[in-house]
Amino acid sequence: MPKVIVDLSMSLDGFVAGPNQTLDEPLGEHGEDLHEWAFAAASWRESHGHSGGEDNADSKVIEESVARTGAFVMGRRMFSGGEGLWENDPKATGWWGDEPPFHVPVFVLTQHAREPLNMQGGTTFTFVTEGIEAALEQARNAAGEKDVTLAGGASIAQQYLKAGLVDEVQIHVAPVFLGGGVRLFESLGDDRPELELSRVVDSPTVTHLRYQVQKGART
Amino acid sequence: MPKVIVDLSMSLDGFVAGPNQTLDEPLGEHGEDLHEWAFAAASWRESHGHSGGEDNADSKVIEESVARTGAFVMGRRMFSGGEGLWENDPKATGWWGDEPPFHVPVFVLTQHAREPLNMQGGTTFTFVTEGIEAALEQARNAAGEKDVTLAGGASIAQQYLKAGLVDEVQIHVAPVFLGGGVRLFESLGDDRPELELSRVVDSPTVTHLRYQVQKGART
Repeated sequence: MPKVIVDLSMSLDGFVAGPNQTLDEPLGEHGEDLHEWAFAAASWRESHGHSGGEDNADSKVIEESVARTGAFVMGRRMFSGGEGLWENDPKATGWWGDEPPFHVPVFVLTQHAREPLNMQGGTTFTFVTEGIEAALEQARNAAGEKDVTLAGGASIAQQYLKAGLVDEVQIHVAPVFLGGGVRLFESLGDDRPELELSRVVDSPTVTHLRYQVQKGART
Repeated sequence: MPKVIVDLSMSLDGFVAGPNQTLDEPLGEHGEDLHEWAFAAASWRESHGHSGGEDNADSKVIEESVARTGAFVMGRRMFSGGEGLWENDPKATGWWGDEPPFHVPVFVLTQHAREPLNMQGGTTFTFVTEGIEAALEQARNAAGEKDVTLAGGASIAQQYLKAGLVDEVQIHVAPVFLGGGVRLFESLGDDRPELELSRVVDSPTVTHLRYQVQKGART
């Protein structure tokens, strides 16, 4: 049975982006520190069109994610950054370049209807205005036997978690404090799911924690 | 060289206590879920005057902490809970009972001067009104060759981190969302230290992450 997966890098103090996000610095101040482990990994570099990198435990974790993911769901900001970038320019294709690193169908949650985009390398962007369940249904259909990964941002992860639609949570805990910014788990409140720790991959640069969401009523 | 250590259990969403802390439920709603791994461990049970428990990886992590800790520093709330409990009753001895589980000198940061308390089992409570540096100096002197552990709460950990006085951070990430409550790392801001991941202990019930604080100027 295919799964719905939250898969994000987080600082030890709980942020997925640093303070003061801008178009030039979409991850906020020092936000790139969260992803240094990935930038160095051979599999990440390959999916982003680069050669080289290390074939280490981190790279294998990314390889796994790539292999199992049949479609992504992401928020509009993750597609195109701050307000006004592409609403005002229907030809804009987000900031992922001509060959985005996804290589599978991507469903972008937005309030602005728009024609799908077919990019190089197998990535398609489909814009969904009917909400998170509709986006997930389309992503599941596109993914077939494979999993659907929620690529972010934080509010997308939170919405799906609170709606009980997530099966697995994989968090890459980067050994860094960002000091402020965008929190991954802001305030799940009573809708928070129960978790079971299912795997830890320990590498020198990051800790990969994986949890299975326990279905059924919270006691 | 003895170290100053932050050593706390945290939920995956970053809380060290759940919402709605009360005198009856000092860890807030579901806050005890953070410590289930410890309650089950033989070494925790021993230091708390109980027999039994499991001699597992978790228990060894606690054993290590017990062996290396020569003194604790804690906040006033951790000594006695909500406002008014012992300020109004000079005979009150906190809520740790006649034989608290610390078994070494404990320095309690408070605004209310008070005579030290000698409890059974080697725990002494000394009340420090001169601030975090004074408390640490007293704790270092008491600890001798051993380390000083910051027992909490969150605000104590934050104050020492921001002051650059912490050498090591050990976080036990419990596989649970609390949904709200007291955040361990609220907003360290520009005073946040740099970290280096130094050890991960993976057990079925909790993940023990250890980081060394990098001394020197942040770039």
